[in-house]
Amino acid sequence: MRIAVTYHVRAEAAEIAARAQGIAVEQSVEMPLDAIDEPAVLRDIVGAVQDISDLGDGRFAVRIGLAVSTLGDDPGQVLNMLFGNTSLQEDVTLADVDLPATILAAYARPRHHLPELRSKMSARSRALTASALKPQGLPAARLGMLSERLALGGLDFIKDDHGLANQTYSRYADRISHCAAGIRRAIRHTGHHTQYIPSVTGDLDQMRAQARLARDEGLSSLMVAPMISGFPAVQRLVREFPDMTIFAHPSMGGLRIAPDLLIGKLFPLIGADAVIFPSYGGRFGYSQATCRRLAAHARAFGALPVPAGGMTLARTGEILDFYGPDTMLLIGGNLLLARDRIPEEAAAFTRAVAAHAYR
Amino acid sequence: MRIAVTYHVRAEAAEIAARAQGIAVEQSVEMPLDAIDEPAVLRDIVGAVQDISDLGDGRFAVRIGLAVSTLGDDPGQVLNMLFGNTSLQEDVTLADVDLPATILAAYARPRHHLPELRSKMSARSRALTASALKPQGLPAARLGMLSERLALGGLDFIKDDHGLANQTYSRYADRISHCAAGIRRAIRHTGHHTQYIPSVTGDLDQMRAQARLARDEGLSSLMVAPMISGFPAVQRLVREFPDMTIFAHPSMGGLRIAPDLLIGKLFPLIGADAVIFPSYGGRFGYSQATCRRLAAHARAFGALPVPAGGMTLARTGEILDFYGPDTMLLIGGNLLLARDRIPEEAAAFTRAVAAHAYR
Repeated sequence: MRIAVTYHVRAEAAEIAARAQGIAVEQSVEMPLDAIDEPAVLRDIVGAVQDISDLGDGRFAVRIGLAVSTLGDDPGQVLNMLFGNTSLQEDVTLADVDLPATILAAYARPRHHLPELRSKMSARSRALTASALKPQGLPAARLGMLSERLALGGLDFIKDDHGLANQTYSRYADRISHCAAGIRRAIRHTGHHTQYIPSVTGDLDQMRAQARLARDEGLSSLMVAPMISGFPAVQRLVREFPDMTIFAHPSMGGLRIAPDLLIGKLFPLIGADAVIFPSYGGRFGYSQATCRRLAAHARAFGALPVPAGGMTLARTGEILDFYGPDTMLLIGGNLLLARDRIPEEAAAFTRAVAAHAYR
Repeated sequence: MRIAVTYHVRAEAAEIAARAQGIAVEQSVEMPLDAIDEPAVLRDIVGAVQDISDLGDGRFAVRIGLAVSTLGDDPGQVLNMLFGNTSLQEDVTLADVDLPATILAAYARPRHHLPELRSKMSARSRALTASALKPQGLPAARLGMLSERLALGGLDFIKDDHGLANQTYSRYADRISHCAAGIRRAIRHTGHHTQYIPSVTGDLDQMRAQARLARDEGLSSLMVAPMISGFPAVQRLVREFPDMTIFAHPSMGGLRIAPDLLIGKLFPLIGADAVIFPSYGGRFGYSQATCRRLAAHARAFGALPVPAGGMTLARTGEILDFYGPDTMLLIGGNLLLARDRIPEEAAAFTRAVAAHAYR
């Protein structure tokens, strides 16, 4: 069974068929098809180009059928298989995906619908109203006073600014206690059941602890930022707190971060010892300058650069000259093309690296 | 104390100063400065434009000083404060950040450096070598045989393809057992201590369980994809498994996903009951067509659309006509501009929504 995924691709008309096929392979088996000797993989797993249509202005819509079985029930894997590596190609946008009912059943999905929310607010048919607690930097008590004053206007929901986390000037526990109390005071005046929505952040354990504190305060809503917390953490939280209405914030909904910064500095910041990245000259579009900076940043951090993404045995010498010996060189699909000579091809690779005389 | 963050912005020369100031506000307090009555926030928290330089071709480098205190020690908050909302503006790229030593100390950072890895591989000064297990779709036993054949070539590291997760055709536990065994068999031939790097996926609990299984198999490396698992989960894993060498995979390192898909379909998929998004006509560039599709997708999923991002009381009627009553309308900073009349302004907002006669 396959799901239909639509990508928008900037390309020349003469090359769009090859680009579409490239995406179909990248988002499924990620290796040369000639190196696959299992018919079931070729038939059931390799992505299939279903349609290509011209959108004008040098853009094309490409529809690809991806095997449902590669997704499993992990929401992180949904992102990975829909757009993981292809996200590194600047001229491709993930435009749409058809999610059939059999897929939907594996994921959490909304549980608190509009009629329930309207009923809690005694709002028969009107739109609901909300505001936000700001600015970043106020102490918890001040945010509590602000929440009271906003709630006095009869708003339905008051949410944390998404910048409010667990900073020293306004700890989460302190903040939600003050804000929940402020809103309770306002409710005694207005009679309207304004709800406070705290923003929960950090890793899954921290989010759980924050959600429990919110429940202990009598709150029934939480805000999360899925692109920061990670899809897997959000879905787990949703399942563990089914009583909570979940608001999703779009923070980090775009990701145009210079690769040398993201991969060379920010991944090591959180503890990566080695960073894999698509080298210049492979299937991705990173320039030599980007790759040089990325490797330098990583090394400055004490992390090992691992250029990859379409490297070949024939290019070993050139790549080693470019990156130098303080590098791990990763050749994937190209080694597998050797099929029944894989050990020999891998040995040729290791010999080439060991014997290389740097220019 | 501030860190210097550099953004590349496409803009007209006449507007770049205002754009720079807009980013400085968006990435700090995210509200009109006129609505802030706390001098310490204006002085210490609001982002400060430090430099603007012309890169040519209509692009500018903008350096902004952001308050270190807003970052705390949560790596998710690092992404949030560096680029969270501004990532939604298509003409801005996060280009660089200076991470002073005082900041670095709060995060995990690499712990297994190149000399240690070289020593394990008896590689005095050469580059290290690696390959990858593919394709997606092979059963665990076949991947195990492939790992043996690759290792017979004397490679240093063999990693899982990043598409291998915990799919039914190749469960994680089964896979790492077969692959670790295959590599042990090869080591008996080669005498070279090839290491297997399994890819760990899912939420923090699942990643922990997978990392423990890897350790039980005698493995000492793990691969993670920080943009999928989330920075907070990766850092937590790094800290709990200090003996493991961590490889970071760049999957999802770019995020050009159509907003109506990401926010309207994928956030509800993982359980968001309500989705907050920057409406057309505010501080962000989403078109009316995008917003209409986004709201329709969300409702089809049973999730509530929450347009926000620069909405004003004066526009309430227009926004309600556009989105209809099955909506939550969020006005943040604009209500706060009323300062000592916040309750009255909030009340005017709630009355306007309750009394609105739809066209």
